[in-house]
Amino acid sequence: MSRDPFSFEGDRVLLLDQTLLPDREETIEVRDALQMADAIARLAVRGAPAIGIAAALALAVEAARDGSAATRLGRLEDAGKILVASRPTAVNLTWAVERILGAARRALARDPDLDGERLAALVREEALAIWEEDRAASRAMAAHGADLFPAASRFLTHCNTGALATGGGGTALAVLLELHRRRPGGIEVWATETRPLLQGARLTAWELREAGVPFRLIADSAAAHTILRGGIEGVLVGADRIARNGDAANKIGTLGLALAAQAAGVPFVVVAPTSTIDPAIPDGASIAVEARAAEEVTAIRGMRLAPTGIRAENPAFDVTPSRWIGAIVTERGVFRGPPYELGGPVDTKPGP
Amino acid sequence: MSRDPFSFEGDRVLLLDQTLLPDREETIEVRDALQMADAIARLAVRGAPAIGIAAALALAVEAARDGSAATRLGRLEDAGKILVASRPTAVNLTWAVERILGAARRALARDPDLDGERLAALVREEALAIWEEDRAASRAMAAHGADLFPAASRFLTHCNTGALATGGGGTALAVLLELHRRRPGGIEVWATETRPLLQGARLTAWELREAGVPFRLIADSAAAHTILRGGIEGVLVGADRIARNGDAANKIGTLGLALAAQAAGVPFVVVAPTSTIDPAIPDGASIAVEARAAEEVTAIRGMRLAPTGIRAENPAFDVTPSRWIGAIVTERGVFRGPPYELGGPVDTKPGP
Repeated sequence: MSRDPFSFEGDRVLLLDQTLLPDREETIEVRDALQMADAIARLAVRGAPAIGIAAALALAVEAARDGSAATRLGRLEDAGKILVASRPTAVNLTWAVERILGAARRALARDPDLDGERLAALVREEALAIWEEDRAASRAMAAHGADLFPAASRFLTHCNTGALATGGGGTALAVLLELHRRRPGGIEVWATETRPLLQGARLTAWELREAGVPFRLIADSAAAHTILRGGIEGVLVGADRIARNGDAANKIGTLGLALAAQAAGVPFVVVAPTSTIDPAIPDGASIAVEARAAEEVTAIRGMRLAPTGIRAENPAFDVTPSRWIGAIVTERGVFRGPPYELGGPVDTKPGP
Repeated sequence: MSRDPFSFEGDRVLLLDQTLLPDREETIEVRDALQMADAIARLAVRGAPAIGIAAALALAVEAARDGSAATRLGRLEDAGKILVASRPTAVNLTWAVERILGAARRALARDPDLDGERLAALVREEALAIWEEDRAASRAMAAHGADLFPAASRFLTHCNTGALATGGGGTALAVLLELHRRRPGGIEVWATETRPLLQGARLTAWELREAGVPFRLIADSAAAHTILRGGIEGVLVGADRIARNGDAANKIGTLGLALAAQAAGVPFVVVAPTSTIDPAIPDGASIAVEARAAEEVTAIRGMRLAPTGIRAENPAFDVTPSRWIGAIVTERGVFRGPPYELGGPVDTKPGP
């Protein structure tokens, strides 16, 4: 089975240090919010849902320490600021911290004599609820996605969309793990290495190996050949942000996979929670593409690859037009398209 | 200007050691065929035309050593076997060695009393002729290719197709260098890093920097995004083998570039000498794709990237169907398509 990126032990959180994968599997012990903020900042824990849960668990640890309810709430407010600052652009992080703080503030407002231990229990329950909701969403996406492929056996996926990134079972990778659970030995996965940061080679390969799913790693440049000549029957990817018309921003390289799938007549499926859909964005043209550091391209894990004194471009994601997306799988069901008008009723017809 | 990968000094050949690029620019002194075979085998010199020329120059060095014409021919025959064995699948290598040996054998058959020095001169001339023919072919391809783009300024290329690979100016990269020569400052190039062996990051980036052409390096996964959103006006690639119908085998990743160019309405142009066209092959389906070592994917320059105990697939090239190729530029002129019926008359209409 795939592995959670952390566990909650009441007075501490144990984190699998993802910066060391796949070379070493080491656990970090996190005993306060400052240590968690540091772990989030240096990507020991990563993936939008996962860092939201990690922050919530860190607040549960802070709440468990001595003090009156008011003292504990003050500590939580300070801890929340530290956590949110660790990755300022991560929407899930802010959302999770605000949800915990809101619950704590409301409880104290309702009952100013609230016992400190009672407040701690309430914060812990809220943090575990966030985690459990994520697991439930992953399970639902996995089931809906797997239902689309009752007989297919050869899949291609990109980047890391598994348990390591979500705290639950993941998105696209969760679908593949569910297919493997339903038909052990019945599926095979081609995983792209996902330059520049190699989430496929380092993390997806590690998760698939741990889960016992037969797979091969390929260079990103081999994906079109694999899809057009390799008998691939489904391409499954995650999404960072989905516009109302179904255009989907995802890890750089996704667009090329969609083009190859289109040319090969292979279903191209996006798997993402409904929280990824932004109805305020009409289409992909409105999505700005983040440019990351050139050094991620000119070097790999600290080793320089290219000549000195050159320029490199490093767009972090690309936008796949919805006309090349065959289905969008969410925890609520499957949106079928194109065209898409997201936010409307879910179409649960089976088959891609 | 771009730089030759070797120079001929009569009794020795000086080679730029491409395995050390871009970190160090070191020259190897090659004094016999055995040393050249070693340099070819470990990829110190690489690229089909370049290794053919390098082998021919090594034979010229062997021929220059003391002895009667018969002694020297015997030495050339032995040296030829060693050279051909250094990379058994390289067509140009066998072709160049056979051409030199054939000329030497014929000369000795015509005149059994041929002077040893005379034989050496003849071998040297033949080797230099092979080199000069390659230079001339590169110049012609560069001119024909540049004529296709009288006004375009933003180009994308893949792998390394420059002077380092050919001994002449190259193929696709020669066209870009010619455009830069015609319109200094008028063109800009996006170069893919070309995993797994990073010929783009290591060699093309080095050649473009040396030539002063403005360029950016990108990950292979960023190519589709760059072509569809980056205002690219031409995608230029080389070819390893071209079927009669125009289907072209080239470095893995080329197929994905063709799909993106097609989707973006951008001209996709293959640049290759007519010796690359194999009229015995009707179409790309007949071209077997060479699988290379998995370690090229699971590691980069000796550093492991992926977990141990996993499988990787490493197809060395892919086949782009001719329906996505807008033109094939050769030293004889430009074949326009699709469709193509190669081997027939060349169509020299300008404009892609």
